[in-house]
Amino acid sequence: MRQILLCEPNISEGRDHSLLDALSAAIAGTGGARLIDRSSDPSHNRSVFSYLGDPRAVLEATESMAQIALEGINMASHTGEHPRMGAVDVVPFIPVRNVSVEEAVAVSREFGSFLGDLGVPVYYYEKSALKADRTSLPAIRRGEYEGLTAKLKDPAWAPDEGPRKFNAKSGATVTGVRPPLIAFNVNLATNDLATAKEIASAVREKNGGLPAVRAIGLSLQGGKTVQVSMNLVDCGVTSIARAFKAVNAEAARRGIEVASSELIGPVPLEAMTDAFKDLVKVKEFSVQQIIEVSLINNG
Amino acid sequence: MRQILLCEPNISEGRDHSLLDALSAAIAGTGGARLIDRSSDPSHNRSVFSYLGDPRAVLEATESMAQIALEGINMASHTGEHPRMGAVDVVPFIPVRNVSVEEAVAVSREFGSFLGDLGVPVYYYEKSALKADRTSLPAIRRGEYEGLTAKLKDPAWAPDEGPRKFNAKSGATVTGVRPPLIAFNVNLATNDLATAKEIASAVREKNGGLPAVRAIGLSLQGGKTVQVSMNLVDCGVTSIARAFKAVNAEAARRGIEVASSELIGPVPLEAMTDAFKDLVKVKEFSVQQIIEVSLINNG
Repeated sequence: MRQILLCEPNISEGRDHSLLDALSAAIAGTGGARLIDRSSDPSHNRSVFSYLGDPRAVLEATESMAQIALEGINMASHTGEHPRMGAVDVVPFIPVRNVSVEEAVAVSREFGSFLGDLGVPVYYYEKSALKADRTSLPAIRRGEYEGLTAKLKDPAWAPDEGPRKFNAKSGATVTGVRPPLIAFNVNLATNDLATAKEIASAVREKNGGLPAVRAIGLSLQGGKTVQVSMNLVDCGVTSIARAFKAVNAEAARRGIEVASSELIGPVPLEAMTDAFKDLVKVKEFSVQQIIEVSLINNG
Repeated sequence: MRQILLCEPNISEGRDHSLLDALSAAIAGTGGARLIDRSSDPSHNRSVFSYLGDPRAVLEATESMAQIALEGINMASHTGEHPRMGAVDVVPFIPVRNVSVEEAVAVSREFGSFLGDLGVPVYYYEKSALKADRTSLPAIRRGEYEGLTAKLKDPAWAPDEGPRKFNAKSGATVTGVRPPLIAFNVNLATNDLATAKEIASAVREKNGGLPAVRAIGLSLQGGKTVQVSMNLVDCGVTSIARAFKAVNAEAARRGIEVASSELIGPVPLEAMTDAFKDLVKVKEFSVQQIIEVSLINNG
């Protein structure tokens, strides 16, 4: 059975296309790794690469890419609107298929150790965190690049890998394993923003709703429609089907219909089949029954 | 974008495993074709092979396999419970992905012409039929192998390819293109067989229900439960979601719940994503968003 690990590094460069092309080439040139997306934001001065493959290939691609990024980016002169702490800012590894969290964590630790050896302070986050207060990216990144000198002097923020010493050129890197995140929005057949906010509040984890769900109520199209915009941060915990049913039930209680929904960005096949199975009450369905899957497993 | 054509030939041999292994080897040995399933029934004395790949590879695999089957099988001494007319009895080609019906029909015609040149009378059925009364397999196969001598004398049954002459060793072959067929069963939370039969009758095409749906009511587990057993013969016409909702609504009208459902055998990815989109009201979802699909397309 083929293993698929996804990596989505956020790199602090969104303007220099010759450098970005070199990073793409390093990833695409690694046997067994496939670059599936690259998006750059010049005002953030930041790019996100998405690539996948077996764990060894993804590790190798990530190391090659990171080495070029560290050479080419100088954080001392970096400007951009997005919070950032280093040249190779955040490197999440996401198990997609037949990869255990443990195995993915081992990959992230190998990568962290590689960066440490190159003189970059590294923090492990999410499933790879070694300390309880290092699971969340915003907590680790607080103070950003500009606050790193002070942060590294604080014993509570000694890095997990690499020198406890400010690296002016490269800053610091956060890496680790997180579950696939699904951006799932449900549009309501009403233009009442208060309702969308109420429903978002009812379904999100923070207010006692569904676990592993973040949700906000939004007004769209100049107030013509409203949306419950969700992040399913671990679809193994709360699936698309469960989130959909919850919003649907909250809307129905208020006499409102669900107009449509949207899935933004990449979705793992299993997240979709799980939702399908739930909604059609299918028992004993195997992903192997999907005709095309024989091509994924042996491809 | 990768093309996938599926072929599921029904061969009149279910006992001689050395011959069946030779057929498997011919398929698996064709570059670009992948054998995904083989099942044999000794009492039917019949086997079904499932393999897929790009259209040229599937044609080549089918020709290699058929040639060996025609050499190894003698219909004059064939016995078995299943209706059959020839050694290479029925050869359906099923477009799964990025293959048009026209393109698949062209493949089936090339295959039919190949068999005709080998001296086998060939009838085109389903989407490949050249005559209106030749779309249905049972109509063509009526009289079976034993009735072929008489059938071939009837001008109405002149074959579409090959000699109008009885071939004692090989019989005749039916080939053509059909849409993917989905075997979808819905189990009801009741043991009342009459209800299952009523619902089956309400949803099937024959009685004015859903187009491209065949359905029967069955009693299972020694009468403990009942099932609406459906064949969705063209899921582009009636999807899994629509069939599920129809059975669900008919059951609800009778105060009965749907207990569970079953998908038997291979299902095209698109049939599942279509159902998912319908049930979650997703607009503008592309199969390309499924992470694993980049691996299918570029294989």
